[in-house]
Amino acid sequence: MNMNDIKQFKVVLLGAGNLATSLGLALVKSGFSVEQVYSRTLEAAQTLANVLNASAVSCLDELSNSADVYLLALKDDALPGVIQQVCRLNPHAVYVHTAGSVPMSVFNNLAVNHGVLYPLQTFSKQKPLDFDSIPCLIEGANAFSQDVLWRIANALSKNVHLASSEDRRVMHLGAVFGCNFVNLCYTLANETLKSRGLDFELLLPLIDETAAKVHRMGPLEAQTGPAVRKDKKVMQGQMQLIDDADRRRLYELMSEMIHKLANK
Amino acid sequence: MNMNDIKQFKVVLLGAGNLATSLGLALVKSGFSVEQVYSRTLEAAQTLANVLNASAVSCLDELSNSADVYLLALKDDALPGVIQQVCRLNPHAVYVHTAGSVPMSVFNNLAVNHGVLYPLQTFSKQKPLDFDSIPCLIEGANAFSQDVLWRIANALSKNVHLASSEDRRVMHLGAVFGCNFVNLCYTLANETLKSRGLDFELLLPLIDETAAKVHRMGPLEAQTGPAVRKDKKVMQGQMQLIDDADRRRLYELMSEMIHKLANK
Repeated sequence: MNMNDIKQFKVVLLGAGNLATSLGLALVKSGFSVEQVYSRTLEAAQTLANVLNASAVSCLDELSNSADVYLLALKDDALPGVIQQVCRLNPHAVYVHTAGSVPMSVFNNLAVNHGVLYPLQTFSKQKPLDFDSIPCLIEGANAFSQDVLWRIANALSKNVHLASSEDRRVMHLGAVFGCNFVNLCYTLANETLKSRGLDFELLLPLIDETAAKVHRMGPLEAQTGPAVRKDKKVMQGQMQLIDDADRRRLYELMSEMIHKLANK
Repeated sequence: MNMNDIKQFKVVLLGAGNLATSLGLALVKSGFSVEQVYSRTLEAAQTLANVLNASAVSCLDELSNSADVYLLALKDDALPGVIQQVCRLNPHAVYVHTAGSVPMSVFNNLAVNHGVLYPLQTFSKQKPLDFDSIPCLIEGANAFSQDVLWRIANALSKNVHLASSEDRRVMHLGAVFGCNFVNLCYTLANETLKSRGLDFELLLPLIDETAAKVHRMGPLEAQTGPAVRKDKKVMQGQMQLIDDADRRRLYELMSEMIHKLANK
């Protein structure tokens, strides 16, 4: 591997989902060449491979054994099995996964050079994201792996941080609260409005300002609404509007938590 | 009242909190003159009155009886009591409250001309918001009241909608899900990161993209993360990181709800 020009690294990308798509596009945009795209479904591999000017494979046996970097952007539960097979390909390569909650040790005894590149973002195929400002948490098993990861990540993003597997795991939990659970709240807002034929679009300025606010102040300080004011009458009135048992439990629990946190 | 130039309306603003501050500033910026600002605490009334070039009062007896519009931006539970006293002042004036969950009927038998102007946004005193794009839901008790409200709201915002008390109540519940509960999720993300000395700032690109996504697609379609994938291993691992009993209940409940909604 020519360490002076990392962009000459041959990259094999495993995965063709939301993250793999954004990552593949960012790699190519940054000057890397992606040799192969692997997915269990050839069609998915082919779709991404076409865009990246790579070849598509749907069988691990067909993977090149001459790549410098194997990037595994797969579902967490698929990782251990694929790693077992892929790490045999090239003992000199660097093997990298992209998962928040899978420790780096998943590569132990299977590859010398390995590490993790975890982009802290929510991805969708429909609109691949610019990697430029995405925080990338990296971890390398040895100095060489870490250097390679550091240089790849810095070619993709201006927001690169070293993070241990344990830090990354906590970060991933933070991301579930700050993204996945937030998005559930958006869904529940949408369902609430739909029940009376009201337009979700009316909520977008509020959704945007709620996110913008936590750039200016801590989220606890930014809290507004009936729960933080302990406005029981409003809360009881709102509970009466909710039919679904889960949603009622959620409303009560979140209101209680807001009140406790604000008065801690 | 000279109906041809609503900006010559004399306005009395009751309240000096987050909403009253943003609303008062928007009124003055749009050319209205605010005569008086009322708050139970004179200091709060004075602070806002100074900015609005109005006089400050802390006693309802001191309110002018010659205003054209009385705007009540008060806490929900303070409204009925204040309305009782204020509506006696001028039988020709329009009386308006700004609360999501208080029906317009709170004015019944107390004022002929009355209505509601509900700005669907989260306000903070630190940074008064531009009203321009804030959805304003209005409701008027009669044609005159509705016309006055329509014209005031349109002077403040380009996003004005007629909405009944029942629509507004549902909208308010949507806002609690889409803003207050979202903000609790931000707080829990922040607390999670703090527990390991990690910086909340790392989550801001993710928070922004999560909000941006629901401009492009429905929130259910935008859902990502371990719960929608039903990745039990990740979810169990994350539960182990959570000490607090409320947070564990919340994690389980929200994960279940995401999974159910995505597979409905």
